[in-house]
Amino acid sequence: SSQARRARRHVRSLTGDFPEVDEKGEPKWPKGDEKVWKDAMRGVHTELPDITRSIVGHVQTSLARAPYNLDDFGAYQAAALSVRDNLIVNWNSTQLAFSRKAPKRAYYLSLEFLMGRTLSNAMLNLGVQPTYGEALTNLGFSLEDVIVQERDAALGNGGLGRLAACYLDSSSTQELPVWGYGLRYKYGIFKQLINNEDGSQLEAPDPWLEYQNPWELPRLDVVYDVRFYGTAQRYTDGSGRAVWSGGQEVLAAAYDVMIPGYGTKNTNNLRLWESKPKRGFDLQSFNAGDYERAVETSTSAAAITSVLYPNDHTSFGKELRLKQQYFWTAASLADMMRRFKNLEKPISEFAEYNAIQLNDTHPTLAIVELMRILVDEEEVAWDAAWEIVTNTFFFTNHTVLPEALEKWSVPLVEHLLPRHMQIIYDIVGPLNMLFLQSVEKKYPGDTKKLARMSLVEEGFPKQIRMANLAVIGSRKVNGVAELHSELVKSQIFPDFVDFYGPSKFGNVTNGITPRRWLDQCNPGLSDLITNTLKLPKDVWLKDLFKLEGLIQHVDNPLFQRRWAAVKRQNKERLALFVERLLGVKVDTDAMFDIQIKRLHEYKRQTLNILGVIHRYLALKKMTPAERKKVQKKVVFFAGKAAPGYYIAKLTIRLIVNVARIINKDPDTNAYLSLFFLPDYSVSLAEVLIPASDISQHISTAGTEASGTSNMKFCLNGGLLVGTVDGANIEIAEEVGEDNVFFFGHLTPDVEGLRYQHVYHPIPVEEKSPALALVLDTVSSGAFGDESVYEPLLNTVRHGDFYILTDDFDSYIRALEMVDEAYADRTEWVKKSIRTTAKMGKFSSDRCIQDYAQEYWNVESIKVD
Amino acid sequence: SSQARRARRHVRSLTGDFPEVDEKGEPKWPKGDEKVWKDAMRGVHTELPDITRSIVGHVQTSLARAPYNLDDFGAYQAAALSVRDNLIVNWNSTQLAFSRKAPKRAYYLSLEFLMGRTLSNAMLNLGVQPTYGEALTNLGFSLEDVIVQERDAALGNGGLGRLAACYLDSSSTQELPVWGYGLRYKYGIFKQLINNEDGSQLEAPDPWLEYQNPWELPRLDVVYDVRFYGTAQRYTDGSGRAVWSGGQEVLAAAYDVMIPGYGTKNTNNLRLWESKPKRGFDLQSFNAGDYERAVETSTSAAAITSVLYPNDHTSFGKELRLKQQYFWTAASLADMMRRFKNLEKPISEFAEYNAIQLNDTHPTLAIVELMRILVDEEEVAWDAAWEIVTNTFFFTNHTVLPEALEKWSVPLVEHLLPRHMQIIYDIVGPLNMLFLQSVEKKYPGDTKKLARMSLVEEGFPKQIRMANLAVIGSRKVNGVAELHSELVKSQIFPDFVDFYGPSKFGNVTNGITPRRWLDQCNPGLSDLITNTLKLPKDVWLKDLFKLEGLIQHVDNPLFQRRWAAVKRQNKERLALFVERLLGVKVDTDAMFDIQIKRLHEYKRQTLNILGVIHRYLALKKMTPAERKKVQKKVVFFAGKAAPGYYIAKLTIRLIVNVARIINKDPDTNAYLSLFFLPDYSVSLAEVLIPASDISQHISTAGTEASGTSNMKFCLNGGLLVGTVDGANIEIAEEVGEDNVFFFGHLTPDVEGLRYQHVYHPIPVEEKSPALALVLDTVSSGAFGDESVYEPLLNTVRHGDFYILTDDFDSYIRALEMVDEAYADRTEWVKKSIRTTAKMGKFSSDRCIQDYAQEYWNVESIKVD
Ligand SMILES: Cc1ncc(COP(=O)(O)O)c(C=O)c1O
Ligand SMILES: Cc1ncc(COP(=O)(O)O)c(C=O)c1O
Repeated sequence: SSQARRARRHVRSLTGDFPEVDEKGEPKWPKGDEKVWKDAMRGVHTELPDITRSIVGHVQTSLARAPYNLDDFGAYQAAALSVRDNLIVNWNSTQLAFSRKAPKRAYYLSLEFLMGRTLSNAMLNLGVQPTYGEALTNLGFSLEDVIVQERDAALGNGGLGRLAACYLDSSSTQELPVWGYGLRYKYGIFKQLINNEDGSQLEAPDPWLEYQNPWELPRLDVVYDVRFYGTAQRYTDGSGRAVWSGGQEVLAAAYDVMIPGYGTKNTNNLRLWESKPKRGFDLQSFNAGDYERAVETSTSAAAITSVLYPNDHTSFGKELRLKQQYFWTAASLADMMRRFKNLEKPISEFAEYNAIQLNDTHPTLAIVELMRILVDEEEVAWDAAWEIVTNTFFFTNHTVLPEALEKWSVPLVEHLLPRHMQIIYDIVGPLNMLFLQSVEKKYPGDTKKLARMSLVEEGFPKQIRMANLAVIGSRKVNGVAELHSELVKSQIFPDFVDFYGPSKFGNVTNGITPRRWLDQCNPGLSDLITNTLKLPKDVWLKDLFKLEGLIQHVDNPLFQRRWAAVKRQNKERLALFVERLLGVKVDTDAMFDIQIKRLHEYKRQTLNILGVIHRYLALKKMTPAERKKVQKKVVFFAGKAAPGYYIAKLTIRLIVNVARIINKDPDTNAYLSLFFLPDYSVSLAEVLIPASDISQHISTAGTEASGTSNMKFCLNGGLLVGTVDGANIEIAEEVGEDNVFFFGHLTPDVEGLRYQHVYHPIPVEEKSPALALVLDTVSSGAFGDESVYEPLLNTVRHGDFYILTDDFDSYIRALEMVDEAYADRTEWVKKSIRTTAKMGKFSSDRCIQDYAQEYWNVESIKVD
Repeated sequence: SSQARRARRHVRSLTGDFPEVDEKGEPKWPKGDEKVWKDAMRGVHTELPDITRSIVGHVQTSLARAPYNLDDFGAYQAAALSVRDNLIVNWNSTQLAFSRKAPKRAYYLSLEFLMGRTLSNAMLNLGVQPTYGEALTNLGFSLEDVIVQERDAALGNGGLGRLAACYLDSSSTQELPVWGYGLRYKYGIFKQLINNEDGSQLEAPDPWLEYQNPWELPRLDVVYDVRFYGTAQRYTDGSGRAVWSGGQEVLAAAYDVMIPGYGTKNTNNLRLWESKPKRGFDLQSFNAGDYERAVETSTSAAAITSVLYPNDHTSFGKELRLKQQYFWTAASLADMMRRFKNLEKPISEFAEYNAIQLNDTHPTLAIVELMRILVDEEEVAWDAAWEIVTNTFFFTNHTVLPEALEKWSVPLVEHLLPRHMQIIYDIVGPLNMLFLQSVEKKYPGDTKKLARMSLVEEGFPKQIRMANLAVIGSRKVNGVAELHSELVKSQIFPDFVDFYGPSKFGNVTNGITPRRWLDQCNPGLSDLITNTLKLPKDVWLKDLFKLEGLIQHVDNPLFQRRWAAVKRQNKERLALFVERLLGVKVDTDAMFDIQIKRLHEYKRQTLNILGVIHRYLALKKMTPAERKKVQKKVVFFAGKAAPGYYIAKLTIRLIVNVARIINKDPDTNAYLSLFFLPDYSVSLAEVLIPASDISQHISTAGTEASGTSNMKFCLNGGLLVGTVDGANIEIAEEVGEDNVFFFGHLTPDVEGLRYQHVYHPIPVEEKSPALALVLDTVSSGAFGDESVYEPLLNTVRHGDFYILTDDFDSYIRALEMVDEAYADRTEWVKKSIRTTAKMGKFSSDRCIQDYAQEYWNVESIKVD
């Protein structure tokens, strides 16, 4: 085997090749003159002249431009390429160090990574932002203008994808050997436009790779074959093995995205797969004149990774989506297996070297795929393979919404992945020694329980329940906030809790990276905190509990003034942004009230806009003198609706049209205005969040698993108005209930209320006259064509699944309390300081350490 | 307009932006600190430490590799990227200088550019090859091993495409402002494989861009819309104008390939267009679940440039090919027009600033497209527009083969390009003031003549004759060798010669670049020549007539020995290559006889293989003692057949199977062996050509327009056996008939012989018993399944369009004369020296100067 290694020494280049060592264990220089190499090698550039030369060099060569025709975008490209070079140097050292040390690794499998922009984040993490700023200034550019040239990497829908991005940041910062695995969608989440005519959402493709992506590294030598369709032929030896052959073969090609840690050389890897045809062009068909046929194979292969499904919290069962899931898990597992095999350890130790986190059920096929590899290819016995699998995987559930629980039709899986269908049947069926038989043994005769726990749901067609499969195949299962993790146990998997015992089920409350969500998006606040705590910023940014040190300054008037001034500046930055975007002036003396998140009935943007209308009607009724006493307020909305989500799109249309009316109403528009900012994105969030006085997190109790934007607002000193749901609860626990504006019914009430709505409905007019008035105003055509909104209003009037009628009055009262509290500005600033000070728990560093220690059992390795 | 320029100053960046000037005409520094910029800017690296650092830097960053996992391919990539940086620096200076000086420019429109490898050529042209060699050695690599890692850029079929590549090299070397325009095919000419079973040709796609292409520069900011289909609505004002709208719009995106001149900073541009969908992904269809529809548009747009048509000298009339032609000419003209408009000259001066060379009829639509732009968009009056057009274009005809003369069906053009069809009708029809009416005036009543000269050929469907259109729309027309240019006048366009007078028709005999085809591929000979001439090599490489200086050394025995030694080394290099490729030893004492070119009946590889069989049969009949007196010979073939060209593919199969038999015949294989080297390419030519003793250029007289490989062999001191055809004639004029082995019937005989074959056939047995015996041997199954070859043999036995039966005996006699001449080795070496010495005329520098001076009227501009 040392011979095998020698043979591999000069061989091209999957990540993780490392030098031969001599007798003393010192690395031998592989080829050429060591001194020549070392003299010519570069490290990370941190000095101004090096950085300037590097930027200018990229202008001249990579961009082939001259100073004469360099614009901000060109300057961005050159700066990005220059920073990229530094990232690669660290990335290389990190991968080499991990290969040498061969630690247990963790892999984060996520169909979504909502990365946002990279340039600023990378410069901050490398500690070179000021020097790059200086270099750019000297060259005639401004850092801010350059930074905003970057297009967001928007490979995600919302919270789940952004969480994955924060976790990667924390894993590098915590120096943990963690890789992400995802798909390199050619088109990320759609670009949202607002129809000028009727205010409705329009969707345009997001060709984010159009101008090349400096943050990825195509690894042309890392490719795997992935099979679809074909036939699976079982061995007749009772081993459970089979041969899968025929069908379509597609190539998975790796693109690596460098994930720099903050204040460390450690730079983890996010590997994204692109699908490619295996055999390029079909020349025979082409020559035979059948051009369509000639490109067909090539098209259908490339199609797999061409677009991100734009649905959040819903599952549709489309074949292409299943192809994406299998393509991604198969390529990722093949890659992990290759890396593991380089260690030359027995296959039985696989789980000692690999932990795989399943981000929701999307990658659940990985469980089946690993079984396939172990049983069919590695010839591991079935039970031993199942032992390895169930020690390798960990599963995070992200929602209790039934429409989000993935199910795949059995005929579809059978057709696309015949071998995997066999394995699934074996897991639940006769060959399965470990699961169903033992269930049977434990609960003899409880056929209902067996049916509930089964992987296959009866029906036409039968369906595979991916969540059950994920639970069965994983070592641990967790939810993403305390309440949610309880609901996971009590609502979704009670039978499994019964069967496995509660210790298989845990909680890791979500978190956010304070680097992006404070230092980067709110430099003013970051500076103020550093100066106040008298700690270098890399200390508190890596140990966010240090923020508690702010508490002792809460009564210091100078500090309060500075705190308020930072908020004011951020509001002015937002106002400028809105002015540039929409051409309207925003009053920064007003309270900024923000709700930004995916449009979804359960998130209840509808409640918010109905509340706005209520406020508008109240203002209209007042005399000018009365109005003068009202708290001025600007309400911001942003968020995308899934293109097929009719009700959510109607809500957007209502918001936009309400804004058009009230913003131009001279009676009221000094006191209330409203903006829907199109195309919500990470970068937009970075402008909005630091500018909020209050933000809204008003999901029906028991529906929002955690939420993370709530944490971001609080970290930036914005207060919350919210329901007792998700992480709002834990935020309140930290900051104290008096610093949060809670309202609405609690989770245990909801089921009863829904029952009542259906079986003993009470008219809105009775339940909430205020709400009824608002609904009637919309129905009267005050905001345009009345008939348009009826389907939306009817969801409130009839059935009211999300209990708006029950919560409306309490909501309005909560907003009144907000107004009152805001009137005492000093007290408000103190609330704001206390809120930020208590956000230590919500650093994603804490989360990733939870996973590392309680789940994956991986350890930090500092790269030097 | 100085204000317009100011407004443009900081605007992104089409090639050719240039600095504002102050009152004194000095360029103003555009932005930032001039000193900071200038200190950080780099020039071409020529020193070892810079070059080493640059290579190592690319290893670390661009490749993200360490010395530990760097193989030859990685070293190639790093060296290539490093050289690329230098090319870009010069390319940038060149484009800037041309923009400033605003000279008349020439554009070479070619559907094919057969570039081959670039690394070595670029290093030689930059004069840095030795230093790069040293750097690579220090880093543990060898330059030769690194160079051969590069994949050929094979965007061409053969001679026409390689000629285009040589012309670009010469245009840069001659410091002429010339750009090439072509298509960036995703798949170049297919890769040729030989079926192990039956010896037939197999075709595989050539995914040449798979590992990224360091020699191109994506110019993401240079894109144009190209329209297809739709409707054309004429104005009713009699202006001839129309509006073309609707249909499909596709994007043309530019990729620039840097073309370095030899020993000059001048680096011209080859701009290749890639087709892209205009609107990316159709999200609506995607969400509606219609995935197929969603990708359809995107696929059909990308398809346009996805593959090079693999046919040489044939035209098929496929819609996709027409789309390629229009896409390419439309994008190229839009680009030229934009560049011209930057000059702010009146449109009437277009032809004073632009000359466009049409490489064969493929870009003929450019004539119509320029009319469309001028008339419809620039609102130039029809006659004035036609005046501009006919002063702008120049047309090179490349063949007299009727199957190669392009015709496009009128319904197809009408459908795809409705506006262009109108314009074509206007050129020939009622609106045309300049052409048909004047023809009518000149030859009143000669309707036959009118029909022959018409652009539209009657029939079902009607067809547009692109060659006629090219002649009518061009200022001058030329052929590519003296004989061919005569045939162009007498056979193809006699009516047009009559009409326009002979001065519209000229000749530019093809040429080749001595940089690639001597200095690069034959460094031994290059060194010997430099030492012998006592001239720096950049002198004779730029003035190839200097080679005549070798004549005075022809009788010097030491020089003769050195000359022979170089040839011997090149033969050994080829032998090593063959041994590595096929695992067979090649006897370098034998005469090397080479025929390498596209497989085509007119090129008569069949004659050659039948001659080989004849030699084999003769050897078989001999006693061992007799055989010992025979000249030992190794015959090499290489070349691709169009995938649909049945007879040509049979010839390959015959060659391969004859080789299998005779190479293992112990009676004869010491005296005669035969190799078919698969996948002929520029790089393979570079190994074969310097190793030839004799090469074969044996086309039926009057069929090969010029040939260029004949020149390459002669430049490398190989002698020719050939017919009195194409450039063979001019080669013989230069080197003297006694240094060329001519055979066969002359061009004027051919028509009569063909007539005879059809109307008074003489059996082969009578005409050439030797040939009859060879044919019968093949028919007898001596080289495998007899029935397979019958269709091929029948082309000789019946009809014999290419007059093999007439030329066979004379061919065999010529080969005998070659044997005799080769027996006197000293005399042979002298012939070889004299041949090389007389190749001055065939430098493509001479050709490009011919075009520049006699056709385009463009002048050299040295960039400093
Ligand atoms: C672009 C984007 N989408 C979605 C989210 C998640 O928002 P929430 O936690 O409110 O669902 C965030 C978090 O800030 C985000 O930045
Ligand atoms: C790859 C390739 N194809 C075709 C040709 C043209 O060959 P010929 O002039 O023999 O047709 C050449 C010239 O050397 C070549 O290099």
